[in-house]
Parts: sequence; C-alpha cells; structure tokens
Amino acid sequence: MSCIDFEKMRQMLYSAVIADILDELGYRDQCMDFGIVPLNADDVVCGRAFTCLAADVYEVPENPYQKEFRTVDSLKKDDVLVATTNGSVCSGFWGELLSTAAVGHGAAGAVIDGLSRDTRAIRKLKFPLFLRGTHPADSKGRTDVIDYDCVITCGGVTVHPGDLIFGDFDGIVVVPQEVEEECIRLAFEKVEAENVVRGELLAGASAEEVWNKYHIL
Amino acid sequence: MSCIDFEKMRQMLYSAVIADILDELGYRDQCMDFGIVPLNADDVVCGRAFTCLAADVYEVPENPYQKEFRTVDSLKKDDVLVATTNGSVCSGFWGELLSTAAVGHGAAGAVIDGLSRDTRAIRKLKFPLFLRGTHPADSKGRTDVIDYDCVITCGGVTVHPGDLIFGDFDGIVVVPQEVEEECIRLAFEKVEAENVVRGELLAGASAEEVWNKYHIL
Amino acid sequence: MSCIDFEKMRQMLYSAVIADILDELGYRDQCMDFGIVPLNADDVVCGRAFTCLAADVYEVPENPYQKEFRTVDSLKKDDVLVATTNGSVCSGFWGELLSTAAVGHGAAGAVIDGLSRDTRAIRKLKFPLFLRGTHPADSKGRTDVIDYDCVITCGGVTVHPGDLIFGDFDGIVVVPQEVEEECIRLAFEKVEAENVVRGELLAGASAEEVWNKYHIL
Amino acid sequence: MSCIDFEKMRQMLYSAVIADILDELGYRDQCMDFGIVPLNADDVVCGRAFTCLAADVYEVPENPYQKEFRTVDSLKKDDVLVATTNGSVCSGFWGELLSTAAVGHGAAGAVIDGLSRDTRAIRKLKFPLFLRGTHPADSKGRTDVIDYDCVITCGGVTVHPGDLIFGDFDGIVVVPQEVEEECIRLAFEKVEAENVVRGELLAGASAEEVWNKYHIL
Amino acid sequence: MSCIDFEKMRQMLYSAVIADILDELGYRDQCMDFGIVPLNADDVVCGRAFTCLAADVYEVPENPYQKEFRTVDSLKKDDVLVATTNGSVCSGFWGELLSTAAVGHGAAGAVIDGLSRDTRAIRKLKFPLFLRGTHPADSKGRTDVIDYDCVITCGGVTVHPGDLIFGDFDGIVVVPQEVEEECIRLAFEKVEAENVVRGELLAGASAEEVWNKYHIL
Amino acid sequence: MSCIDFEKMRQMLYSAVIADILDELGYRDQCMDFGIVPLNADDVVCGRAFTCLAADVYEVPENPYQKEFRTVDSLKKDDVLVATTNGSVCSGFWGELLSTAAVGHGAAGAVIDGLSRDTRAIRKLKFPLFLRGTHPADSKGRTDVIDYDCVITCGGVTVHPGDLIFGDFDGIVVVPQEVEEECIRLAFEKVEAENVVRGELLAGASAEEVWNKYHIL
Repeated sequence: MSCIDFEKMRQMLYSAVIADILDELGYRDQCMDFGIVPLNADDVVCGRAFTCLAADVYEVPENPYQKEFRTVDSLKKDDVLVATTNGSVCSGFWGELLSTAAVGHGAAGAVIDGLSRDTRAIRKLKFPLFLRGTHPADSKGRTDVIDYDCVITCGGVTVHPGDLIFGDFDGIVVVPQEVEEECIRLAFEKVEAENVVRGELLAGASAEEVWNKYHIL
Repeated sequence: MSCIDFEKMRQMLYSAVIADILDELGYRDQCMDFGIVPLNADDVVCGRAFTCLAADVYEVPENPYQKEFRTVDSLKKDDVLVATTNGSVCSGFWGELLSTAAVGHGAAGAVIDGLSRDTRAIRKLKFPLFLRGTHPADSKGRTDVIDYDCVITCGGVTVHPGDLIFGDFDGIVVVPQEVEEECIRLAFEKVEAENVVRGELLAGASAEEVWNKYHIL
Repeated sequence: MSCIDFEKMRQMLYSAVIADILDELGYRDQCMDFGIVPLNADDVVCGRAFTCLAADVYEVPENPYQKEFRTVDSLKKDDVLVATTNGSVCSGFWGELLSTAAVGHGAAGAVIDGLSRDTRAIRKLKFPLFLRGTHPADSKGRTDVIDYDCVITCGGVTVHPGDLIFGDFDGIVVVPQEVEEECIRLAFEKVEAENVVRGELLAGASAEEVWNKYHIL
Repeated sequence: MSCIDFEKMRQMLYSAVIADILDELGYRDQCMDFGIVPLNADDVVCGRAFTCLAADVYEVPENPYQKEFRTVDSLKKDDVLVATTNGSVCSGFWGELLSTAAVGHGAAGAVIDGLSRDTRAIRKLKFPLFLRGTHPADSKGRTDVIDYDCVITCGGVTVHPGDLIFGDFDGIVVVPQEVEEECIRLAFEKVEAENVVRGELLAGASAEEVWNKYHIL
Repeated sequence: MSCIDFEKMRQMLYSAVIADILDELGYRDQCMDFGIVPLNADDVVCGRAFTCLAADVYEVPENPYQKEFRTVDSLKKDDVLVATTNGSVCSGFWGELLSTAAVGHGAAGAVIDGLSRDTRAIRKLKFPLFLRGTHPADSKGRTDVIDYDCVITCGGVTVHPGDLIFGDFDGIVVVPQEVEEECIRLAFEKVEAENVVRGELLAGASAEEVWNKYHIL
Repeated sequence: MSCIDFEKMRQMLYSAVIADILDELGYRDQCMDFGIVPLNADDVVCGRAFTCLAADVYEVPENPYQKEFRTVDSLKKDDVLVATTNGSVCSGFWGELLSTAAVGHGAAGAVIDGLSRDTRAIRKLKFPLFLRGTHPADSKGRTDVIDYDCVITCGGVTVHPGDLIFGDFDGIVVVPQEVEEECIRLAFEKVEAENVVRGELLAGASAEEVWNKYHIL
C-alpha cells in the first residue's frame, strides 16, 4: 500500500469532497447510510479498514469475546475498525476497554454498524467513534464476532480489508484501494478551488451564474 | 402580506406557543413530524416559505442543478427554503454553497425533508438548517428538483408558498396565511402570561391547582 | 424500601456497570431500547419509578390533563417519572410546566417513551429528561393519561412502581426491587476494579491478555 | 341519516370509484393507509361506522372486556365496527366470538387498525374483516378499549361515528356524512361510463387518445 | 419427553386456544410476532423445535451449507425446524431441496424468521412453512448457519431445543416443556366449551351477558 | 437484441434458478427486495423492461397523466413495465385502465415499486402484476411520471431499458443484457438436473451426502 499522509487528510479534507471525486471516477455507491453518526460532532476518522463481522446469539459461547479481542489486538497504527453486527440492537457491541485497547495500538477510530456502550468514557479518550446508537448491556451472550479481516457490508457499502475510510459529521466514505491515490490527489485540488466560489456567493451572486462560471458545487 | 417583525418573533416566541395558538384557532395539524431536527440545538428559523419539490433520479439530467439554482436564486430577505425530497436518503440534497447563496440573498434558513451535506461548513455560516440527516454524496444524478414555488407536503404538513414558518428545537410549525396576524398577536400575549405560572410551580405548588387557577400549560 | 444514597450513585455509577451486575444476577432484559435518549448528553437520572400510561385520543376529553396532573402531583423526592405513550408521535406529551412542577416536588427526572416539548426551557431547568424526540403540539385532545402508578412497559422493559431507574448517555436500566441492594453494592465494587485495567490497555497491552488476567470488560 | 341501499353498493361499487368522486368533491384524504387489508381477497365492507378506541395496557383491568362488549353490543344492522388500537401488535384485539356477536347484531363488517385472532373461524363466518395482521394472544391485560362512539383516526383517516365506510381489496374509503348522498349518486354514474372505455383499450387503442376522448381513468 | 398425539393436536387445536391456556398458566410472552406468516393459509405446524441460528455473511465460506445440511439431517419425525437469521433479507435462506430433505426425515414443518425461496415447489410438497417473505437468491455467500440445536430467539420469543411449537394462520406459539402436558390437556377442554357460546352469540345474544354466563372468549 | 422464447421461459423457468445462474456469472445483486409481490400467487412475468420513474406531487399538474399515457402507449409485445415511484404510498399509481391498455399493446406484465388500484379488475384480466400494495386513490395530483425509458432503481436493483425481467412468487430478477443468452441457456440446463436430486431427498437421503454427490441445491 502507498504511503499516505493520514494526518493531513484529517485536517484538510472532508467526506463530501471525497465523495465528489469518487463520483467523477465512476464510483457512485461508496457512502454509508445516514444512520451511522459520530459520537462527537467534530470527530473525523481517516485510515485503513480492519473489518469485523458479528451477529446476535442467545447463549454465552464457549470463549466469549475471543474473536473480538483478536480483532482489536490485530489493529495497527492508522487502522480503522469497521464492524458490522447484522443489525444488532440488543447490546453495546463496542465499549470503553476495547476503545482503550484500540488507542493503545494506535488505531485511528472505529465505525460500528451497531451500538456501543461506555460512551461517556470514550468521549474522554478522544477516540473517533461512529455508531448507530448506544446500549448499556455487554455483548457477552448477546452479540458475538463470527469473523474478522474479511469482506463485509457496513452501512450498505462493501468494505474490503485495507480500504481507505474517511468519515466526518456528513457521513462515512469508503475509497476502494485501486483509486485511492488518484482520489486523494484530486480531493486536495478541489478543496482549494472551492474557496473562490464561496466568497462570490456570500457577496450575493446568483448560484446559477457562479455555477456556470466555475462548475463547482 | 402584512408587515411582520420576524426578528422579534425569533427572539421572543417559540414553536410550542405558536402551536398552542393555532390549536385555539382550530388549526390542529400544523406541526411537522419529529424526524426533522435543527443542525444546531439553538437554531431558530422564522420567515416565509419558498417551496421546492425534489425526487430521486438515476441518471444525470440534461441540466443538472438548474431548477435547484433557480430555487435558491429566487430566495429573498426573510424567506425560508422549505424543500421536500420524496424521502430521498441517497444524497445530501442541500449543501454549503447553496447555504452560502441563501445567506447572500438574505434568506432566514432552510427546512429540508431530506438530507444535507457540508454540515460542518454550514454550522460556521450560522445559517439555521433543519433536516433529517446528513449524507456526503452530491445530488447530481441522484436527487433532482422537479418543481418550485408550488404546494408541497413537508414533514407531513401541507405548505403553500408564502406560509409563515417557525422552527426551533421542539420542531417546525406552519402558520397558514389567513390566520397569521391573529396567531402572532395571541402568541406574544401567551408568552407573557406563562411567566407567573412558572414561578408558583417551581415553589412546589400542585400542578392541578395552578392549572385550575390560570388555565395555562 | 431500603435507604439508598441516590446522589452518590449519580456521581459514581453508570448504566453499563449496573447492566453488567444485573447480567451476573441473571436479569438480562433490563435495558430500555436505544431510541430513548437524554435531552442533554450529560444528563444522569437515578431514583425510583413513578409510572404513567398514556395513549393517543382524537377528541378533547371531559377533564383534560387531570390524570397527568395527578401523576405529576404524586411525585416525591428522588422519584423518576417513567411514562409510556403507546408510541405517540403526534404531540409533546411532556413539557416545561410539568417539568417545573416535578422539580418543585423534588423529582429526580423523567423517562418518556414518547415526545416532549418546551425542550429549550427544560434544558435551563437542569431537569434530567430522557425522551424519543420533540414535538411542538400540546397533548390536549391528542395524548391522554389513562392510568398511573401501574405496571407499564417502557422502551421494551417492564417497570413496576418503585423499581430503581438508572439512566445516562448509554441508555436506561431498570433494577427490580428484589435485587437492588445487591446490585448497587456489586456495582460500586466493579467500578473500582476497572481503573487498573484501563491503565494497562492504554499502555498498549493485548486486550485478550488483560481479559485473561482480570476478567473485566 | 338518509336511506341508503347498502346491498346494491356492495354489489356494484368499489373503493376506487368512491375515492374518485370524493376527489371531485374536494375530499382528497379519505383513504386509509395500505397496511389494512381484507382477511379474504373478496371481502367487501359497506355500512356506517361505529367507532372504538383501544390502547395497550400491562395489567388486567378491573373489568376486562367490559367496554369492548359494550362496543359490540351497540352494533346495529349495517354498522361497521371501526377500531383503532394505538398501533397495538401484542394481541389479537378482535376475534371469533366478537365477530359472531357482530353477525348476530346484523353488523356489516369490521375494520381494525390492529390485529385479530381466530381468523380461520372468522373466515367461515363470512364476516368481512379488514386488519393489519393476526396474533394468537387474547387482548385481556394487553389491549383495552378506552372509549367508543367517539371520533378516532383509523389508518390515518379521521372517522366520525356514522360516517359511511366502503372497503374492498384496494383499501378502505371514509365518506363524510355531508357529501354521502352526492357521492353515492355520482359513483353509480361513473361505474357505468367506465365500461365503454375498457372495450376500446382492450382492442389496442392508445391510452392517451382514449383519455382525450372520454376523460375517464 | 412425554408421548404427545401431534396429529390430533393439528386437527383439533389452534394457536389462540393454546395462547389462552398459557396465559392462564402465567406464560404471557409465548407468541411470535405477526410478521411470520404461513406460506399457505391452511398450514398448521405442530411438533418439537429443532433450532438453527444464521447470520448474513459477505464471502462464500470454506464449507458452504455444511451447518445448514447438518441441521436438516438432524431432523427427526415430528420435529419443527425453527430458524432465526438475524433479520436477513438478502437471500432465500430456506428452499425446496431443504424442504424435501425435511419431509424425507419426517419433519412436521419449518418456522423461519427470515426468507425462503422455491416457494411454488414447497407449496406442492404440502410442507407447512412459516416465513417473513420470499427471495430468489441462494444463501451461499449471503446467509450462513453459525450454530444449531441451541437456544435462539425467533419472532421475539425464546425457543429452547425440544420446545413444543404450534402455528396456524393466527401465528405461532411456543410451549415451554415444563408446562406442555398441562397446556395440551386444558386446551382440548377449552375447545369443547367454546362451541356452546358460539351458538348463543350467533342467535343475537349480548356479548356482555354471554361472557358473564360462561366466561369464555 | 436476441430472439428469446419468452413463453417457454415462463413455463419452465423460475426466479430462483435464474438468480443461481447469475450468481455463477458473478452478478450477485440482481434480485428486487422482498416487499414487491405478485397480485396473484401464480403470476409469472417474463419480458423486456420498459422503465418509468414517478414521484409524489401535491398539485394537479398542467397535463395530468400525459407522461404515464406515453409510457403505456410505448409498450410493445413482451415488454414489462417496470416503474418506480420514489416510495409513494399515497395513491394507486397503477390501475385497471392502464393494465387494459398494456394488455391491448401485448405487454407481458408490470412490476411497480409502489401501489396499484382496481386490483379486483386486474385479477380478471390475467395481467401479471407485481406491486407493494394497493390504494383506492387515483394518481392525479398525487403521483406523477417524471421520466420514462430511462435508467431506474426498482426494488433496490438498477434496471436499464431492455433488461430481461423474470418474476414469480419468490421475487423478481433483473438479467443484464450482456449475459442474457448465457444465463437463459444455463438456467434451462440446471432445471433438468434438479429433478434427480429431488427424488433421492424425498426418499430420506442425507442432504449433506446428496450435496456432495450432485452439488445442486
């Protein structure tokens, strides 16, 4: 994989500009659905997907948590845990100690198509977390990891291990690896061009005329 | 249309008191449904509706954005863009540059029965925006304006062009034009009367007795 | 009922640790569903349930508000109003003046499986309120109390009058009265043990090893 | 109320033609939502609404069934029981013995915005029943009648006691009493006119030309 | 397990009477939710639960179908396959050849909290099948069995292997093993008593008086 | 386009076998979602898609029905009208006279991601109709065609004009034109092979062994 400056991306890019570039490149279904939101309005997540697949169960399994721990212990610097739970709403699949471990391993954040608990503590950790909601109950005997480091669908988008993930308040975009270099380059270019347009519109210019002049929205 | 002091309304009134007066006047179905929420908890929107009707499409149309631009360029001082999208959840129908243009035209805010993008930037603009959620993808080839300045239904309430719109954290109320003067006058009166009741209840008075005395809730 | 230090519970406990202890004690279905959320992210509610059952109606009843007032006037110090509305989404069942009366009676907060209005004013009251959403319309002729001080289901959990309620950002847990003493004692013990684990994980330890050593999540 | 030939209506009219005439008369929101369906595909219900309002409860009330019995015992010849349950899905609110009693009183059918049980037996009774679904559990201690012979909303439409109800496989239409005579007269006229159009279209004529010629759809 | 005459149960009992007896015995949450319906209106299923737990996956697993085959090959005479799929709607988890194998093993039917395919062929087999809906796509690489012969939740009810299952058009009831003998005996008694009541009501008797006389609904 | 024997396909193939072949060819997302069902259980639709895109409106447009008529008048022998309505549930978008015109033009059926009316009459026409449900109200001033003969999404699947459509009780499959010849050929082959397997399973063979022997499900 190429050498990407994740920190610069987090500071200068945003999900909408990345989605625009993916549109231009012909990848039009890369945004997760709007029910997955950041725990903190200012959270930005950017890094490589490490995936996890879970489902609800109704008995405590033989080795509770085992695959969930292995998932978390597999995380490396700038990884983003991307987990799907088959729509689980009966437990907080993610939580504080897992977030703490993820921070300890240098992970960049987590995107959970499901619920989390310990969210007050996670707030204090400054660990970017995207989720559908919260639940006080532990996952033991409720929601179990059945596989990890595998292809999943999260928020309606197919995610392969290693895909580039970018999320902020607008939502989460998945950048396929084959276009990531081109996508990032073009995104930085577009961000600069938008500043001119903004100024003219604030001064009261017609939206239609500004579009015809710059073709930037 | 009558001369209304929108700024005074924004500072002193709130959606619940307007809904109460409309109840008294026999208009009992004027509140939009609870899924449309302000981008910022303190956003207050008050002005006249300029309406817009959109729907999802699956090809880039001949003149993308054209009707959306004309909608935005039609906005005047104290107008509120009220847009419905036929339940679109596949794009950010509204966005930063449209918000910027709306601000440039003096518009008072926007109520979108749909999604928006560029929400971090819109926050900075201090443009009151009510919406169902956020999405990073552009509307081009996804969600297209099919008409504007027409009767629509937004959040379950029929909105005619020129109706008075008042929204805050509780929700959004549509005031039909034939009762707007009476409604505003009575709302200002009720706001004053509520202050007495508040004091007695905080001192521990029985809710039932206070109601029997003042008939204010 | 035993003498409980509610204030200490509010400051030191959280919903997830209480849910964990209830799991250990064999009570695994005590968390309300994730759609009921705090009005303020930092709201914590802890006290004894005083219950209320409401439903939508379509005419103004003979004595509007009467049973709702009697509910509120029945509240005592450290009571938590727990109300269910048969899924009502057509009015703000709860509101500012009821919150004010509840504060006047010393109540600890309210959990509404339904909507509220006057939420900007309730924010200022510092009254912990958990709800599904907001609506500007009054409950008169829309949502009526049909019983109170009765068994109800709120957020999917059966609540008996007098049950212990604990809610925070993660969600709301109902502690049955027969295990409340044991539950509270064990919860305080667990909170202390978690601090050690947190430190080792932040230093980069393996989640699996830490679990095998402490068996705390 | 006027003297209506309900039997002739059942045999010759259908819900779509009644909805069309109501459109012409300016009543455009009179069709219940599409989730309420007939138990048998060929069921037709036509008669005057006798209304009932129920809600879920969580304890067996003092006099279980009392108001439900009084509702059923109030039914007269050509009455249609129209019941709403505040969205109850935890019991079969309606059932065989109530249907049997309704048949005994000469009622024309029932429209339940909720669930029913004993549906195999009701099928044999040839009692037209419209419902959202089925549930084996009795309503005692689950779903209780709180009022009857009152204004309700059923399937999203306001129903006053005595309104004319017409339902078939397409859905259920509520005819307000002030236009019922005109509506029925015009509906019979339209049914006859449609037969000509049908013949030309089957022969392969252009839909647009036939419309321009007859203005019937 | 006791010797039960399943065939007599299928012919004489129905789900509502079993739910009533379970209510009397204090088991009030034993009916699956109303979205699981029979493929044929006259299907009746009665037998002992053999359980299966599945979830959606996004890659073809190493041994596709293996656990699903083992589930089906474990079925014995009068077993009912009760499967839950974590809400899967992306494939026909169940199908014709599995039904055929189940029939070959003497199974009494299947209850799928999910979708099936090959439903025209299953109709011809006269194999009672209860399901949420249909889908043409195979389960391979879409929905995989993760466990069987385990505790599950199906249609909202906890099912233990060996529990008695009874389903018909009204819905599906789960009879816990500790009360099954008493439940079946009382159900046969109640079925006989209802016939008297039915006759009086059809003759036009008051529902309230008949209830006061027989206390049967 | 190639010469296809649609009548033979209708008689011998079914949606599940076509979905299986598309899986083998690498097209795994071609089945519409399970909410679109046939009006009659035995309806089979097979032909080429002629597409239509509609959305809800709130005023009667200048030329009501015009684009809907042009859509229907464009249908040719063996065409299948495939219409999407942006999730409209407020009218019967499709109806009897349109079905009659479609039959007059030789169309093979219709797939409506929306509602229809006049369904009793359409039943008599023997016109295969797949739909989400029924509604008595006319589309005029409620749901309007905004484009036709364009790319659409129907039931979650992208449909291009001319794509091959096959639907039966299991659901509806869209066959992209570039693989249609291969798909049809392989589907006929697979149908024959399944008959052997069926016989062995009915005789009580193990599902796992039969799979290992034939690799057919």
